[in-house]
Amino acid sequence: VKALAIDIGGTHAACALVEDRRIIVSETLDADGVDLAPLLRELGDRLRDLLGRAGVPAPACAGVAVAFCGIVDPQRARILATRGKYADAPQLDLQAWARHALGLPVAVENDARMALLGEWYAGAARGVNNVVMITLGTGVGGAAMINGRLLHGKHYQAGCLGGHLPALFTGRRCICGAIGCVEAEASTWALPAICRETPGFDASPLSQCDPVTFEDLFRYARAGDQVAETVRTRCLKVWGTAAVALIHAYDPEVVLFGGGVMKSAPDILPSIKAHVSECAWTPWGEPEVRAAELGNEAALLGAIPMLGGPRRPQ
Amino acid sequence: VKALAIDIGGTHAACALVEDRRIIVSETLDADGVDLAPLLRELGDRLRDLLGRAGVPAPACAGVAVAFCGIVDPQRARILATRGKYADAPQLDLQAWARHALGLPVAVENDARMALLGEWYAGAARGVNNVVMITLGTGVGGAAMINGRLLHGKHYQAGCLGGHLPALFTGRRCICGAIGCVEAEASTWALPAICRETPGFDASPLSQCDPVTFEDLFRYARAGDQVAETVRTRCLKVWGTAAVALIHAYDPEVVLFGGGVMKSAPDILPSIKAHVSECAWTPWGEPEVRAAELGNEAALLGAIPMLGGPRRPQ
Repeated sequence: VKALAIDIGGTHAACALVEDRRIIVSETLDADGVDLAPLLRELGDRLRDLLGRAGVPAPACAGVAVAFCGIVDPQRARILATRGKYADAPQLDLQAWARHALGLPVAVENDARMALLGEWYAGAARGVNNVVMITLGTGVGGAAMINGRLLHGKHYQAGCLGGHLPALFTGRRCICGAIGCVEAEASTWALPAICRETPGFDASPLSQCDPVTFEDLFRYARAGDQVAETVRTRCLKVWGTAAVALIHAYDPEVVLFGGGVMKSAPDILPSIKAHVSECAWTPWGEPEVRAAELGNEAALLGAIPMLGGPRRPQ
Repeated sequence: VKALAIDIGGTHAACALVEDRRIIVSETLDADGVDLAPLLRELGDRLRDLLGRAGVPAPACAGVAVAFCGIVDPQRARILATRGKYADAPQLDLQAWARHALGLPVAVENDARMALLGEWYAGAARGVNNVVMITLGTGVGGAAMINGRLLHGKHYQAGCLGGHLPALFTGRRCICGAIGCVEAEASTWALPAICRETPGFDASPLSQCDPVTFEDLFRYARAGDQVAETVRTRCLKVWGTAAVALIHAYDPEVVLFGGGVMKSAPDILPSIKAHVSECAWTPWGEPEVRAAELGNEAALLGAIPMLGGPRRPQ
């Protein structure tokens, strides 16, 4: 089965022609996160280009699957809320766009859920029907699958706010409005402030990074910088806590960690595995913590199951 | 429809004959939490007594619904895990017990889930199909219903560990093994230690309570005791954080607070409502925070829907 796929983030958008578990051709564009309408027009053009390059006629595709960085109603194919980015998104009729641009039906999903679907269909969660995914990046994303179905909830918010479960009720204000969310205590956007507030920061090489990234943090921690070690330990505890939170909330067999920060997986996974092993209350046995396998392609590879492929999780 | 109902906690067990949304007769026994087998025999005797007193023959009942304070497999009617109490429970065949003792089929559920079911069927969540419940007591219980179905998860742990979502990753070790759980930071069992560790405790009237209860805490806080005020503020923040955690995890329309501590509801609910209103990220509108209505009877009144009454949530 072939399909078109789009993954719209705040700073990049990817589009692809996929066939079952592989990407035939794909392309990534910069995005500014301001207006979705012009970006969609651009993505429609690029998708027609990809079809032309691959010699595949649009009607050979099952549809267009769109992963979007916000709260999405997959049943009506509408974007419901966007937290500042793409303010025009809730007004857009994605079905009309896909019909006019490509003559195809559309399926829309939250990007973290679609990434989980990709990992379930083609990546680290193949064969596992109870799985949660945490994506560590600019923010912290989440998604949950129970008994082979993505969890949505009444207002399509369930599962996808895994980064907004609390880690520290006395902690920092999160951009979502809550206090001490996992994302506010350990994400790329929160990292510079966390470092600045750590005693000794001014004398640490981290103070020369602009802005500090997790790659910087892990590098300087490995080199023995005390501030970097302190912040590293703290962030690893937050992420371990997030894993336990999702295990206690959704009862999965496997916890996947993905997202750009997982380029540093060897600095991250052992600590999270130890934390889960020590702290999760799972009398049935031990949930496995795994790195996601598909990187940036995870959401794109969720296209086939999204569009009703082998088995469509609701 | 009539049914028998049992609610087994660590220190008490209740049994009742119910008809639809009301309890016809009921009885409560002390329980020691040590062995379930003799308690079940006793409860079987009491249920036959209740039937006799009410003049209802056992076959007039749809079955026996059992709420149990542990992790339960409702499909096989087995108790899976008990965290120290009733160590013999996983070995017991509840179906055989109900057949021999009463000639009736049995349905078994976690007590917090069955309490939610009772509130949904006969209490504060009537007509609301997306609801979470937090029970504040010796421990902190949780349950979640999504689209009219109780959430169970692969190993029947989903939803019922709401008290074991994290509130403070730097916090206290919980009896579940995790760190800084809601229950470890604000429950009746945790309260004495929390008070003792608060500066000024020795000079506070709280130091004369043995052990400190939330009723003591709220009374002394209202009277202006500084230590009591500090601990009250802290616990209210933890419970508000728990409400936000469950809203972000399960996307409900209504959050119910129940359990013995809610005897002090006027000291608790306004603060939690304000916290949810300020902190929950719910672009669709505002989830309502309500007090549970059925008190100790909630789980017993879950019997009819448990046994396949008007509509059986899976």
